[in-house]
Amino acid sequence: MKTQLSERFGIEYPIFGFTPSEDVAAAISRAGGLGVLGCVRFNEADELDAALDRMRELTEGKPFGVDVVMPAKIPTEGSKVDLDAMISPEHRAFVERTLDDLGVPPLPDGSRINTGVLGWLHSVARSHVDVAMKHAGKYGQIKLIANALGSPPDDVIALAHQNGVAVAALAGATEHARHHVQAGVDIVIAQGYEGGGHTGEVTSMVLWPEIVDAVGDTAPVLAAGGVGSGRQIAAAIALGAQGVWMGTYWLTAAEYKLGARGDGPSTVQEALLKATSRDTVRRRIYSGKPARLLKTKWTDAWDAPDAPEPLPMPLQNLLVGEAHARISSSDDPEVIAMPAGQIVGRMNAITPVAELITDLAAEYEAAVARLDATL
Amino acid sequence: MKTQLSERFGIEYPIFGFTPSEDVAAAISRAGGLGVLGCVRFNEADELDAALDRMRELTEGKPFGVDVVMPAKIPTEGSKVDLDAMISPEHRAFVERTLDDLGVPPLPDGSRINTGVLGWLHSVARSHVDVAMKHAGKYGQIKLIANALGSPPDDVIALAHQNGVAVAALAGATEHARHHVQAGVDIVIAQGYEGGGHTGEVTSMVLWPEIVDAVGDTAPVLAAGGVGSGRQIAAAIALGAQGVWMGTYWLTAAEYKLGARGDGPSTVQEALLKATSRDTVRRRIYSGKPARLLKTKWTDAWDAPDAPEPLPMPLQNLLVGEAHARISSSDDPEVIAMPAGQIVGRMNAITPVAELITDLAAEYEAAVARLDATL
Repeated sequence: MKTQLSERFGIEYPIFGFTPSEDVAAAISRAGGLGVLGCVRFNEADELDAALDRMRELTEGKPFGVDVVMPAKIPTEGSKVDLDAMISPEHRAFVERTLDDLGVPPLPDGSRINTGVLGWLHSVARSHVDVAMKHAGKYGQIKLIANALGSPPDDVIALAHQNGVAVAALAGATEHARHHVQAGVDIVIAQGYEGGGHTGEVTSMVLWPEIVDAVGDTAPVLAAGGVGSGRQIAAAIALGAQGVWMGTYWLTAAEYKLGARGDGPSTVQEALLKATSRDTVRRRIYSGKPARLLKTKWTDAWDAPDAPEPLPMPLQNLLVGEAHARISSSDDPEVIAMPAGQIVGRMNAITPVAELITDLAAEYEAAVARLDATL
Repeated sequence: MKTQLSERFGIEYPIFGFTPSEDVAAAISRAGGLGVLGCVRFNEADELDAALDRMRELTEGKPFGVDVVMPAKIPTEGSKVDLDAMISPEHRAFVERTLDDLGVPPLPDGSRINTGVLGWLHSVARSHVDVAMKHAGKYGQIKLIANALGSPPDDVIALAHQNGVAVAALAGATEHARHHVQAGVDIVIAQGYEGGGHTGEVTSMVLWPEIVDAVGDTAPVLAAGGVGSGRQIAAAIALGAQGVWMGTYWLTAAEYKLGARGDGPSTVQEALLKATSRDTVRRRIYSGKPARLLKTKWTDAWDAPDAPEPLPMPLQNLLVGEAHARISSSDDPEVIAMPAGQIVGRMNAITPVAELITDLAAEYEAAVARLDATL
């Protein structure tokens, strides 16, 4: 499973694995893919600095990447207090009432409120970039920086290139892909409707070849949304992609320990293992922009007739930041606030990353053999 | 491009082309695929009988198929008058007002009102089956009967098998596919969210391999929804399908003359040629069940705050049957009521069927070669 892109990164498989977990990201790189660490959960630059140190230890010299969330248009900025003032009491009351109705306990006394919003702010995303580029320049292992929301600013692209780091950006529509390439982005990640997190309306089957046709001559395309098997990787290559970008799939990896309790699967993992491909919804309730989430009692509450309209980014994430923290700390697999793609239906066991990747490669080869047999 | 399924049907390519046009269906069969004639537009058995005679003349001995719309659950049946009484005056007023607002002229004096609803009724679909099976038994060219809504009744399956006709049924979810196979259906058509007409929530990238895993050992799977290039056919085979089912793609074939004016593209074709992959919506306004349609001023009107909720099947199609006829007879490409999948973004020229199929085959082979190069 070699493409020009995997050769360029010096990796065995063109499998780019996005995950908020250092352990999972490092395991993906060790297993021959490229692990990409999601930075949005790090509110402080120091935390990300420490996480990247840890990645360095865990990756055994293999390349890896980072993913930041830098909105294309700089949104309303300001202190948490300024932004707080823009949220209506009715919205706050709905969130409080819903958490009570669903039996989500308050955070334990003295625990820090997770101001999850901060990573969505431009200034925080910039601090992520600075820390990551410092690591890239110093140790040379960070080979990719991906932006989840539009093209990064010119100076970020320039800074990345100075440090030998390729720049990728997600696109849910052909126009976005063209804009990225014009802005100097090196790799376009075409994310179909079925993907977890932010997505557009067009599905992977239609979107991937469209974006390949639009920009593939100048920028390699990674296929995202709906990839959780070697057959789907073969489909991505058939459709013209140079590799795949997988996110949801790693959430049930054995190495994924975020929010875990004890040694078994975490509450979130239990919910993911049970879910079918029909158990996701695409809503604005997570961040203010349409994002695909696991369908749970939490998303159902926002679908009820009495629910308010979600707020625009970044206010919605600020509104629900503490709710997400409370939900994460609680223990009910039916009340989860978690981005997940339709591929969740294929995730039915807790499996080590190395085994997941070996299986992907074997199934890929079988799919290519099946195609060969048709000629 | 040979699979077990194409060998079984004695066709050159496992490309199953659904279309309401005899000319297009016959051209697909002549070009090496299997043309499948949609029957829902024939309100009278005699009309279908004549159309099948014409197919026989046009197909030069090649096999072809028919597609009926037989709801899994027998819906409210009755005369047009009985059903008419179930539609509220508010719904009728909204339709009339909308047609006026959009400048859709009334039908020319004396022209027959297209009671498009009838094809959706169980009794009419049964008459389609009887006519088609008579042709199958007599001439042996009809090799497939497909049902667009659920598993056909046991006796229909038995009648088809007696006449040497394979039975296919569309499925938008794994459970539906399992049900079809238990009911004796021979071939499952897995239709992803991006497809034109009735679709479920799960996209082709995720749904096709799910359905292959669920029933592929006992029934071959045709991949539907999002197929309009040889790369997408390669993706379908990579994902485990034995062929593809394409519908939207043939609407801009040169042979498609339904509703055409003069020699150039018809109003509908003009609208389709202009549309991008983002110009479809999935709504209940066509038949009462969620179906993907070209996004036009007509679908926008149903999205407006003052629009009523669509009625259940078969009432909604009865409500809008005459409106569809008026829209079809008018000449505004911005006011169209037409099922179309997201693949419409790839349809940018009027092209003869033979050329379309030659191109699909060539691109398929290039995609397989690209996959081979990765090993």
